[in-house]
Amino acid sequence: MWRATILTLFPEMFPGPLGFSLAGDALSREVWRLEALQIREHGLGRHRAVDDTPAGGGPGMVMRADVLAAAIDAAAAADDPRPRLLMSPRGAPLTQERVRRLAEGPGAIILCARFEGVDERIIAGRGLEEISIGDYILSGGEVAALALMDACVRLLPGVMGEEASGTEESFEDGLLEYPQYTRPRGFEGAEIPEVLLCGDHKKIAQWRHEQALRLTRERRPDLIARFKR
Amino acid sequence: MWRATILTLFPEMFPGPLGFSLAGDALSREVWRLEALQIREHGLGRHRAVDDTPAGGGPGMVMRADVLAAAIDAAAAADDPRPRLLMSPRGAPLTQERVRRLAEGPGAIILCARFEGVDERIIAGRGLEEISIGDYILSGGEVAALALMDACVRLLPGVMGEEASGTEESFEDGLLEYPQYTRPRGFEGAEIPEVLLCGDHKKIAQWRHEQALRLTRERRPDLIARFKR
Repeated sequence: MWRATILTLFPEMFPGPLGFSLAGDALSREVWRLEALQIREHGLGRHRAVDDTPAGGGPGMVMRADVLAAAIDAAAAADDPRPRLLMSPRGAPLTQERVRRLAEGPGAIILCARFEGVDERIIAGRGLEEISIGDYILSGGEVAALALMDACVRLLPGVMGEEASGTEESFEDGLLEYPQYTRPRGFEGAEIPEVLLCGDHKKIAQWRHEQALRLTRERRPDLIARFKR
Repeated sequence: MWRATILTLFPEMFPGPLGFSLAGDALSREVWRLEALQIREHGLGRHRAVDDTPAGGGPGMVMRADVLAAAIDAAAAADDPRPRLLMSPRGAPLTQERVRRLAEGPGAIILCARFEGVDERIIAGRGLEEISIGDYILSGGEVAALALMDACVRLLPGVMGEEASGTEESFEDGLLEYPQYTRPRGFEGAEIPEVLLCGDHKKIAQWRHEQALRLTRERRPDLIARFKR
């Protein structure tokens, strides 16, 4: 069973949206398991402090390495085979390829930071892999962890029907998806392209590939460059 | 007040994680407002159908343009000044700059697609702006909408203290954030870098800038290239 362990100051955010729809059904059927653990249980002193001011000054607070180490060590044995991820805008951008490899593995241990981030020493100290879901700043790692788990869980055996396989293969080819149409044939004066109604599967496949190429060239030339490497 | 209107088949996913912490506090204080509307209320027939098979064949289902148009038109008047967003892996990659402009505006109307996506004609038909939160496939637009709103809401006046201002400016300079450290001075044999304890603010600022540059060059040369343009 694919298992996700989340370390967070807001365990009440989980499973959140992943308690519904595909991911939620799979959670009830025990196709995957999710536990959200409170970092503050490993906090220091009467106030269970988890952070302190940045060395060298500056705004905000930094999460302490010793507190995070205690939380990680309590959550997972040293020989737990799951990768230890830190959601961070400094991390490697998440790709569908990384998602697929995570989904094929035993699960993930995911540290969600808040404030100005974590003490740098915890990253090497516990072998954390920094992953970014995109070039924008969130209020914490929690929503990023939800996105990562959503992407992984839909790939687990038995979660999805065949319905999304098209999208996925398209994206993994390094191309954006071609335009889709359905009934009604006319919508506010715009018709479904003739080729899609011709019944010639070869022609349709060719048109779709051309459209995917055109869209990708227009919008995301970087994807084509990445795929060619 | 910043207002988000979500069109979804899973309104129960909202506010989800945004009901807690910074965003949740701001929601209670009415710094922003969130409504999640059920697309299916505009579905067709006894089963309130919202989708149909793709024209030209292929796996999955496509959300109908006429149903989505009815849902959008019921949610927002034609002169509603808010941008209409479609969360989609085909969209323009979300950036902190786009987040900032959205946060400065009146809010957003966000369409969350499921299945194989939406009938292409709704995009031009209702002037939708396609936005992607990253190069991976989610089970639907809902978690993407949560990420986008989280990024916007933390920038609204009165939501955040000064605590995260550092991170943000750093990222908007086109650089990843420098490493942070806090107490204790020694952690499992690793010391806080000497320069951060020297008390010389100019030296510290210089070290941090060098570290940010080094990290960005190593991990995200694309960010430096983008910033230079």
